[in-house]
Amino acid sequence: MGQRIGIALIGLGTVGSGVVQILEDAVGRDMRLQSVDLVGVAVRDLSKPRTVQVKADLLTEDAFALIEKPEVSIVIEVMGGIEKPYALIRRALELGKHVVTANKALLARHGQELFALAKAHRVQIRYEAAVCGGIPVLQPLQQCFGANRVTSAIGIVNGTTNYILTQMAERSLAYSEALAEAQSLGYAEADPRADVDGNDAQEKIAILSSIAFRLPLPELDKIYREGISAIALGDVRYAQQLGFAIKVLAFAVRQQDGRIDLRVHPTLVPLEHPLSRVDGAFNAVVIEADPVGQIMFYGSGAGSGPTASAVVSDVINICAELAYPVQPVVVEAMDFPGYLPIEEIRTRFYIRLKALDLPGVIGHFGRIFGDHGVSLESIVQKNPHGDAAELVIITHNVQESQMRSALTEIREGTYLKEFCTAIRVLPEG
Amino acid sequence: MGQRIGIALIGLGTVGSGVVQILEDAVGRDMRLQSVDLVGVAVRDLSKPRTVQVKADLLTEDAFALIEKPEVSIVIEVMGGIEKPYALIRRALELGKHVVTANKALLARHGQELFALAKAHRVQIRYEAAVCGGIPVLQPLQQCFGANRVTSAIGIVNGTTNYILTQMAERSLAYSEALAEAQSLGYAEADPRADVDGNDAQEKIAILSSIAFRLPLPELDKIYREGISAIALGDVRYAQQLGFAIKVLAFAVRQQDGRIDLRVHPTLVPLEHPLSRVDGAFNAVVIEADPVGQIMFYGSGAGSGPTASAVVSDVINICAELAYPVQPVVVEAMDFPGYLPIEEIRTRFYIRLKALDLPGVIGHFGRIFGDHGVSLESIVQKNPHGDAAELVIITHNVQESQMRSALTEIREGTYLKEFCTAIRVLPEG
Repeated sequence: MGQRIGIALIGLGTVGSGVVQILEDAVGRDMRLQSVDLVGVAVRDLSKPRTVQVKADLLTEDAFALIEKPEVSIVIEVMGGIEKPYALIRRALELGKHVVTANKALLARHGQELFALAKAHRVQIRYEAAVCGGIPVLQPLQQCFGANRVTSAIGIVNGTTNYILTQMAERSLAYSEALAEAQSLGYAEADPRADVDGNDAQEKIAILSSIAFRLPLPELDKIYREGISAIALGDVRYAQQLGFAIKVLAFAVRQQDGRIDLRVHPTLVPLEHPLSRVDGAFNAVVIEADPVGQIMFYGSGAGSGPTASAVVSDVINICAELAYPVQPVVVEAMDFPGYLPIEEIRTRFYIRLKALDLPGVIGHFGRIFGDHGVSLESIVQKNPHGDAAELVIITHNVQESQMRSALTEIREGTYLKEFCTAIRVLPEG
Repeated sequence: MGQRIGIALIGLGTVGSGVVQILEDAVGRDMRLQSVDLVGVAVRDLSKPRTVQVKADLLTEDAFALIEKPEVSIVIEVMGGIEKPYALIRRALELGKHVVTANKALLARHGQELFALAKAHRVQIRYEAAVCGGIPVLQPLQQCFGANRVTSAIGIVNGTTNYILTQMAERSLAYSEALAEAQSLGYAEADPRADVDGNDAQEKIAILSSIAFRLPLPELDKIYREGISAIALGDVRYAQQLGFAIKVLAFAVRQQDGRIDLRVHPTLVPLEHPLSRVDGAFNAVVIEADPVGQIMFYGSGAGSGPTASAVVSDVINICAELAYPVQPVVVEAMDFPGYLPIEEIRTRFYIRLKALDLPGVIGHFGRIFGDHGVSLESIVQKNPHGDAAELVIITHNVQESQMRSALTEIREGTYLKEFCTAIRVLPEG
């Protein structure tokens, strides 16, 4: 190399501190890191105490002035939020600086515009850390699957909900207890909604699907999303008895007609499926492609070290290409028939409900499902007590719209005491 | 692009046929495949019937004449063997052609010389398919771990032995039955020694370790190797009772002193470890690195489609760089303290032996282990029948050399009826 490469780091929180730690201790890592200079670090508040040592003259509160510096070639944005990093990244690209970001919320909303801007200014924008933190997924998808037609990318992409569901399964914690524990350990935010309602996973599957299928980023509101707050400990137990683990999965699945099925929801995963064993705060993505078959990437999806690892690997890959700039791949959808509405997906369902303990109750619900074209695999009465019986039902593959109309009739019917949960089931293997 | 890129395919067996199928059906795969032309296919015997359609005028028995053609830019070697492909690849590199090969046996023996030749002629030699077939491992290790210091790469890299061990565990087949079944299904060769004796895994860990630690290829005879023919069904059962699966693991582990511990042997893997659930003919590699933590790559390690996927992805990556040639990374070991001899590793052991059913037999063996510094975690007497008792022993971490000297004394002692197995145990997580 020889050439020195200047970096501006925007944000010195968990990820930013991890980045500094790697840059300050480069020996034994990729040789190219030794040609990298940290030009400055922009922070919100200079007076805030830091867990990582940064020379005082590198710190600034003026991110815009920092990225203007002529010696800055690469801008790392790890400040979080949307509007300010959006303005900053726009400016950096306009200035002809390469950008590395871990900001999935920003990319899922403004990514397409930023990619176009990067292309216009002949610079790169890289974001491996935005999906599954430290796990290399986006770059392998871009560089190692070229021989393939990708048919699906299905993943556990949110460590918080996976941690909660794992604690419920392994230690019989209630949802609220597991959430409180995740918060006390720092796995969940004080306001946990972005995780438990599935927004974080929705942003990640938007980005992941665009890489897997080489399409522009989908609109977020096209992606069906369902959180975990309705999952009871009983559901986790019944799922185990039936041979499943409950996981929040993010789906990007190409249909026969070319449409893409994008969605995020709790799912019963057969215990033989590799995703069923991804526990705790770990993430994993399973890619199905022709002819390579099933490939899984597994590891730590969040945290300072793993996320900083992905950020700095992006920096190194930009350094590698600086001498021979490769133009960013143009992403334009050709003959793309669109995304699949949730009503049109076909899946098995697990249903749990409390019914009045009357004669013929199984027949009653069986008839309603049948009337709506929903064929059942099993229906079992559990824990009858008092005047209520709990029914656990597994269906064959049905269309979501049929299930919804069956459930509407069930909810309005007289035999129902309480509707509990409906969870989709992942096919085997 | 615009530019056409000519390819010579050497070999039309399982992998070569898979390559042709991808090239002949490029729509929906990476766009760059559409600028690739198959110039010719070299086969051993033109008269042999083929499972894949290739235009007759593309076929030749003269591989050397084919690679000389000026329109050939990339040579794909998937013919197998060592001496002939070695001569061919040498010639191709000398002619300034890029080379893609899946030939682990060749690379593990002559790779270092071929890499130097490629560098001298400013061309690339790529070999993603040589380790774990379709699973992207080598390229992600090179391109996505630059921020890290890799501490270990441990994998199930041989599908044949993993298939055999899985059938023993799941269906209680004896080793010989499982091997015969693997042979009838095409997972094992008629002469299975390269797989069951660990040679194939030895070649793969040599290549994998050189990429993981950015070192020249190690000499094969520096790598300790042990096969599975001594594993009895009883060992698999006892391991399960103790909370382990038996897997053939290939290890490349950096020690505190910088030396690398390279070995291949059957291993007890704790059921909580992700490698314990890699079953059947699947492969997986777990990389531990600082700061990213544990990353696992999982998928199909062999077969026509997966292996051809990796070969063609290498071709695409060469195409991508043809416009802007990136010089191959120079691999020279600096301050490398060497490889760790097997005698110096520290590990837990599982031991099974048949002893005379005499009073004090547990004390007898316990004393011998203690005399050699081998501390025991548990010693259990199983299935006593007649005058023999089966002992199942788990040790704490011990040095291999201490275990060996203890076992020597045990084998020579009077209490031993039959020594059965000694299998190393993988640490948790």
